[in-house]
Amino acid sequence: MLFAQRFTSIAVSRRYASTVADLYKGLINGDRVCLARSITLVESTHKEKQQHAKELLGQVLQGLKQRQQQQPRKPISFRIGLSGSPGAGKSTFIDIFGRYLLKQGHKLAVLTVDPSSSTTGGSILGDKTRMLELSREPNAYIRTSPTSGTLGGVTRTTNDAIVLCEAAGYDVILVETVGVGQSEFAVVDMVDMFCVLIPPGSGDELQGMKKGIMEVVDLVIITKADGDLLPEVRRLQSDWSSALRLMRRRSRHWSPKVLAVSSRKSTGIDKAYEQMFAFENAMVESGEFMKIRSNQLQKWMWNNVKDRILDQFLADEEIQRLIQSYEQRVVRGLITPFVAADAILNIFGKAKVDKSA
Amino acid sequence: MLFAQRFTSIAVSRRYASTVADLYKGLINGDRVCLARSITLVESTHKEKQQHAKELLGQVLQGLKQRQQQQPRKPISFRIGLSGSPGAGKSTFIDIFGRYLLKQGHKLAVLTVDPSSSTTGGSILGDKTRMLELSREPNAYIRTSPTSGTLGGVTRTTNDAIVLCEAAGYDVILVETVGVGQSEFAVVDMVDMFCVLIPPGSGDELQGMKKGIMEVVDLVIITKADGDLLPEVRRLQSDWSSALRLMRRRSRHWSPKVLAVSSRKSTGIDKAYEQMFAFENAMVESGEFMKIRSNQLQKWMWNNVKDRILDQFLADEEIQRLIQSYEQRVVRGLITPFVAADAILNIFGKAKVDKSA
Repeated sequence: MLFAQRFTSIAVSRRYASTVADLYKGLINGDRVCLARSITLVESTHKEKQQHAKELLGQVLQGLKQRQQQQPRKPISFRIGLSGSPGAGKSTFIDIFGRYLLKQGHKLAVLTVDPSSSTTGGSILGDKTRMLELSREPNAYIRTSPTSGTLGGVTRTTNDAIVLCEAAGYDVILVETVGVGQSEFAVVDMVDMFCVLIPPGSGDELQGMKKGIMEVVDLVIITKADGDLLPEVRRLQSDWSSALRLMRRRSRHWSPKVLAVSSRKSTGIDKAYEQMFAFENAMVESGEFMKIRSNQLQKWMWNNVKDRILDQFLADEEIQRLIQSYEQRVVRGLITPFVAADAILNIFGKAKVDKSA
Repeated sequence: MLFAQRFTSIAVSRRYASTVADLYKGLINGDRVCLARSITLVESTHKEKQQHAKELLGQVLQGLKQRQQQQPRKPISFRIGLSGSPGAGKSTFIDIFGRYLLKQGHKLAVLTVDPSSSTTGGSILGDKTRMLELSREPNAYIRTSPTSGTLGGVTRTTNDAIVLCEAAGYDVILVETVGVGQSEFAVVDMVDMFCVLIPPGSGDELQGMKKGIMEVVDLVIITKADGDLLPEVRRLQSDWSSALRLMRRRSRHWSPKVLAVSSRKSTGIDKAYEQMFAFENAMVESGEFMKIRSNQLQKWMWNNVKDRILDQFLADEEIQRLIQSYEQRVVRGLITPFVAADAILNIFGKAKVDKSA
C-alpha cells in the first residue's frame, strides 16, 4: 500500500512537474497571474493539488532561504497586520496609505483574513468596490480569501500566501482583518507589526477593544481625524496613550504609539509610514525582528499540533458522550473538575487499547 | 488484577473510614484543625491519601450541594482573587481589610497561590510574619500552600481548599497571588471577583501590568495612598480609570472600579468593602454569578483534559526528538509550520499503532 501510494505520488508529480515549475518561475519573476494561481493552489482542499502546493512551497521556501542568507539580519518583507471593526475605515485607509507606500518605492501586497465569510455566507470585506484606486496600481496586489472554512484553514492559507507574495517580490505585506472572532490574534502571530484602526464617534461600548488587543498592539491609528470629530479624536488619542503606558511593553525596543489620520484630508498618512518603518528599524537593529519570526514559526507548528491532537481525541464519539455527562456532573457540583478529567482520561486510555486489540 | 485493586481499595477505605468521616464531621462543625488536616490531605501526593481526599471531597461536595439547593441563587461563599506584585502591599492590606470583614460579621479564609516557592525553593509569600493581627482572629483562617510542584498542582489543590473552606463555614474566601508567572490567570478562573493591588512610586516599567490582567480585573486598588505618594496615586487612579473605559467590559452588570487605599491610615478600606459587595450583589441579582461558576468548572475540566492529553503525547521520547528536529527545520525556513505539524502527527499515529500491534 505504501509503495503504491509513493508510486502514484511520483507519477502525479511528473505529470504536473512542468506546471509547478512554470508557476514558480512566473512567481519569482513577479508575474501577478502566477501569484494569483499559486495562492489559489495553496487554498485548494483537493488532495492532488495540495501535493502540488506542498512542492511549490518547498521550492519557494528554498529560494527565499537563499535570498535571506545574503542579508541575514534584514527581512525580505515587512509584514504589517491591520485590524479594526467594520466601519473603522480600514479600506479607505489602505487605499490611500497603500498608494503612499508605492510612491516611496515599495511593492505592496494586501491580504485579507476574513473568517466572517465562512460563517455567514456573505463577506464583510469581500466586496469588489474596496481599495479601488490601489487595485489599479501595477505594484500593488490585493487578495481577499473568503472561501476557507475554519479559522485554522484561513490562517494556514494566509500564512502560505504571505510566503508566496514575498517570493513574488512584494516587500511590504499588509494583512488586514476585521475584528471578528479570533482572527485578530491569528494575525498577530503572522506579522512583524500589529496596528489597530479606531474610529471616533461610536459609543463607548463599541469602542471597547476586544480582550487582549491592547497588549499586542504596536501602533494605534485613530481614523477620521477631521471636521467635527476632531475633539473626540484628541480625547481618544490621550486615553489610548495613557492606557498603553500602563501595559507592560511587548519589546524593550519599542513603545506603542498613538496617531490620528484623516483619509479624507490625507493627513497623518506620512506619520503612519514613519512610525511603521521606525518600528521595523528598531526591531531589525536590535536583532529582535528575526527572533520574533522564529518564535512565530515555532508557535504555529505547536498550535497546529495541539489543535489536531485534541481534534483526534474529540473525534471519538464515546469520548464526546463521556465528556458531556461528566461536564454535567461537574456543573451540578457532584464531582470536582479534576476528578472528572481523571475519569475521562482513564476511560480514553482504555478505549484506545480495546480498539487496537 | 482489577478485582484485586478494587478489593484493596475497599479494604483501605474501611480501615480509614472513621478518619475521613471524623474529618468531615469536624470540618462542617468549623473545626480549624480538621480544616487544616483536610487541606493537607488534598495536597498530598501519596496515592492512598489521594483516595481519601477524593472520598472527603465527594462528601463535602454532596453537603454543599444540599446547602446550595436551599438558596439556589445566592452563593455559599464569595471568592475574591487578590493579585499584586511583590511590594504592592498585599499582606498589609489583607491584614487590615480582613479584620474589617470580620467586624462586619463575616468568616474569612485567606488562601495563597504561590508558585514561586516551587521553582526557587524559597517563597515570596510564605514568611510567617505576614498578616500577624489577622492570624490571631478566631474567625479568620490563613493558609499558604507553597509545597506543590507545577502551577497545575498548585491550582488543583487551591481549588479543593476553597471547597473545604466553604464547607467549614467561611463565607468570604480571599485567594491571594503574587504576580509571578501565570498564577494570576489561574486565580481569575477560581474566583468570583478579581482585584489587583497597584502600588505608586515604582517606575513606569514596573507598574506595567502583565498581559491580559487589565481585561480580567473587576476592581483596581491603588495602595499606599498617603503622604508624599498622594499625587502619584491620583494620577494612577485617573490613568487606570480611562484605560479601563477603553476595554470591552467583562459583564453588562459591572464596570470595573478604581479605588485608592492607605493601610497605614486605614482609609479606603470601607470603600473597598462596599465595592466588593456591590459587585457580588450586581452579579447575584442578574443571575450571572452562578452562571460564571458553572463556566469556570467546565473550563477547569477542559483545561485539565487538554493539558494531560498533550502531556501524554509529549511523554513519548520519539515524539520529542521528532518535534525538535522539525522545529529546527521550520525555524531554518525549510518547511512551513503546517507541513511540519502534519508530519509529526502522521508519525505519531503510526508509532501508536505499531506499539499496540
